[in-house]
Amino acid sequence: MPIKKRLEVISLGDELLLGLRDNSHLTYLGKELARKGIVIQRDQEIRDSTDDIKHYVQETWNRVDVLITTGGLGPTVDDVTREAVAEALGCKLVYDETVEQAIRERFARHNRVVTENNLKQAYVLEGAEVLPNPNGTAPGMWLEKDGKILIMMPGPGHEMRPMFIDYVLPRLEAKDIAFTNDAYLQIRTCGVGESQLETMLQPIFNPHAEDLNVAYCVHEGIVDIRLGSTGLLPWQTIEQIGEQCRDALDMDFLGYGDVTHGELIFKYLRSREKTFSVAESCTGGLISSAFTDLAGVSKVFLGGLVCYNNDVKTTLLGVPDAIITQHGAVSPECAVAMATAAQERFESDYALSITGYAGPTGGNKDNPVGTIYMGYCSPYGVWSHKIHIPGTRIAVRQKAAVMAMDWVRRKLLKYQMHDLLEDLAM
Amino acid sequence: MPIKKRLEVISLGDELLLGLRDNSHLTYLGKELARKGIVIQRDQEIRDSTDDIKHYVQETWNRVDVLITTGGLGPTVDDVTREAVAEALGCKLVYDETVEQAIRERFARHNRVVTENNLKQAYVLEGAEVLPNPNGTAPGMWLEKDGKILIMMPGPGHEMRPMFIDYVLPRLEAKDIAFTNDAYLQIRTCGVGESQLETMLQPIFNPHAEDLNVAYCVHEGIVDIRLGSTGLLPWQTIEQIGEQCRDALDMDFLGYGDVTHGELIFKYLRSREKTFSVAESCTGGLISSAFTDLAGVSKVFLGGLVCYNNDVKTTLLGVPDAIITQHGAVSPECAVAMATAAQERFESDYALSITGYAGPTGGNKDNPVGTIYMGYCSPYGVWSHKIHIPGTRIAVRQKAAVMAMDWVRRKLLKYQMHDLLEDLAM
Repeated sequence: MPIKKRLEVISLGDELLLGLRDNSHLTYLGKELARKGIVIQRDQEIRDSTDDIKHYVQETWNRVDVLITTGGLGPTVDDVTREAVAEALGCKLVYDETVEQAIRERFARHNRVVTENNLKQAYVLEGAEVLPNPNGTAPGMWLEKDGKILIMMPGPGHEMRPMFIDYVLPRLEAKDIAFTNDAYLQIRTCGVGESQLETMLQPIFNPHAEDLNVAYCVHEGIVDIRLGSTGLLPWQTIEQIGEQCRDALDMDFLGYGDVTHGELIFKYLRSREKTFSVAESCTGGLISSAFTDLAGVSKVFLGGLVCYNNDVKTTLLGVPDAIITQHGAVSPECAVAMATAAQERFESDYALSITGYAGPTGGNKDNPVGTIYMGYCSPYGVWSHKIHIPGTRIAVRQKAAVMAMDWVRRKLLKYQMHDLLEDLAM
Repeated sequence: MPIKKRLEVISLGDELLLGLRDNSHLTYLGKELARKGIVIQRDQEIRDSTDDIKHYVQETWNRVDVLITTGGLGPTVDDVTREAVAEALGCKLVYDETVEQAIRERFARHNRVVTENNLKQAYVLEGAEVLPNPNGTAPGMWLEKDGKILIMMPGPGHEMRPMFIDYVLPRLEAKDIAFTNDAYLQIRTCGVGESQLETMLQPIFNPHAEDLNVAYCVHEGIVDIRLGSTGLLPWQTIEQIGEQCRDALDMDFLGYGDVTHGELIFKYLRSREKTFSVAESCTGGLISSAFTDLAGVSKVFLGGLVCYNNDVKTTLLGVPDAIITQHGAVSPECAVAMATAAQERFESDYALSITGYAGPTGGNKDNPVGTIYMGYCSPYGVWSHKIHIPGTRIAVRQKAAVMAMDWVRRKLLKYQMHDLLEDLAM
């Protein structure tokens, strides 16, 4: 078992505090470290100011075993991290000719001239090991001091990420700080809210309460549960707990890891060599886009029609005029007609349709804004389904897309036995 | 001029440190506050642990004038923020029956049963003003104490954002902490890289270099420039500098603020009562979805066909078989045929098509992965256009959608004079 160490991250850069850029580094490092059994204890985004860096690095250094910094190692004037960190830790900066050489070679390869600014990047903290940066000029640093470890990495994601994987993680593993294999199990669910899940699964977790870490994460219509151990539970036990959750969740279990609805439907239909199409009104392309995100999907996903305008529903898709006139475009009848029409037009085995009022205007007393009808056409029948989603236009559309795909997933699961029997009869 | 206050943010939630979720709140708050003249001085992501919350809230409270917290106000056991903050600040928690009433009403509306957990959310810090949460059960809080301000908001974005705009910002303005009007001017551009923009616009900025803040922000294919003042430049001068940039940028100027390509095309076509449709292959619904994001777009945007499978291009859309056989589906000929077919099928005035290799497989020597052809059909002619985008499948698709819409925008601008002459002739 790795030794528990307190690890914190400091992300440098005014742009993070001005809302100019998401701090996606934290998400990346958090996920990669958690996978290896390390939970970041705190992250700070601080400004590119010498005083701030000195103050917060010093204060943090006193609390941690491992400190990771990202950013501020560039050649421009606002990159003051190197100097400020040296002061905070009472280190000298020394000129490293190997780094200078690497910078000169990189510039030569790109036919660019080395300026004085660039050579500033050849200064490293005395005693630090230089971490190579194959994707940029600023090298990283690994410094062991006062029984603690300082890791400094550059800000650009395409420089930081490979450096972390290739040079930082192996060193953390060698020091027995990081696990060499995965440290948690992620269970993805759909259909149950966070607090209901907690009530439902607590009896499974209770016997292990002291040694089990449970974290919930809510996306649009999806809740992830991560099961980790404080150190005493063997991986096998965590897997057994995962299986118990799977059984308890039944149809609400999506899968382990980062599986998506699109992937699940795609894999199932591909294994049966069946095809799928979509007719979207209110979601306007979101469902098609979720499928076409997947490489190789064209064997299963034939296409989609975004029939945002009612005329398009009748002319191009082929929904009978009478249905829209009599029942309206947002109705179970129209949803069913759209699904069957899509199945016919695309000549697919399965088809999904969706129509509704995403807002902010539209809707009526019976079907207010947020009312969504979906239609599903399959070899086993045609159904419609009504849901209501509160929220803004963007939220309604995104959640409606997820809910519609989840409905398809459930229908596929429900009729899986029919598929198996059909296969046996062949 | 508002009074300069030190404002920090603490974002609560293990999920942020475990890489389960991007801290998009920081980006949002950073941007909205910067717009009103406030720069966040530090952000911390900390764990849902009573000890950590107490320690860091206390330490931060001693340094700041305004502290904003997000998250940890939910009904589950890991939501301990309320209690920990109360301890840190030496406040009592009091039960607020108005909040209880609001929770009960919300649950009744959604036909759900209120549990004990949910009623935990009715406890508020003594002396705090309750900030209503129309989109969830956890109310926000505004507490003035020791000459400082504490603002607590719930974690879910669709709850936090409206609360910030409707209840927090007006209070910050009333306290003269936030500007009542915008503190910077955002210029959105498309078509020029960041460093080229910098070189191009520097002569415009130079005369004001001492008092002007310039920040660049790069999205997919778009670069935003934010012009702010250190305090000495009047707003009128910033607007004049903006106008000079606009002139220099010419066709590369998209607009001021957060304008999108979809909005620009929609507004232009709506003003001329023209209609638009889309045939997408590699972008698989992203362009349709960008248009249907806009409320009221159905008058202009008739719909889109996602023809991911080649058969669909010929059968449903009506691209001649011969074109795909002879030139392939990723070719200028196919792009043009898709655009004209979309225009005919949807009976729209304008149509855009896109076909390409998003990767990771596909492509050939002449048209490697990342090759995109777009087609445009308008009352003034039919064109195709080729671009190459490096990167991952997801990145290629997203950037291709932006570039295609930008191409349409430029075509519309170019033929604007024809439109005007046509209007005059009528």
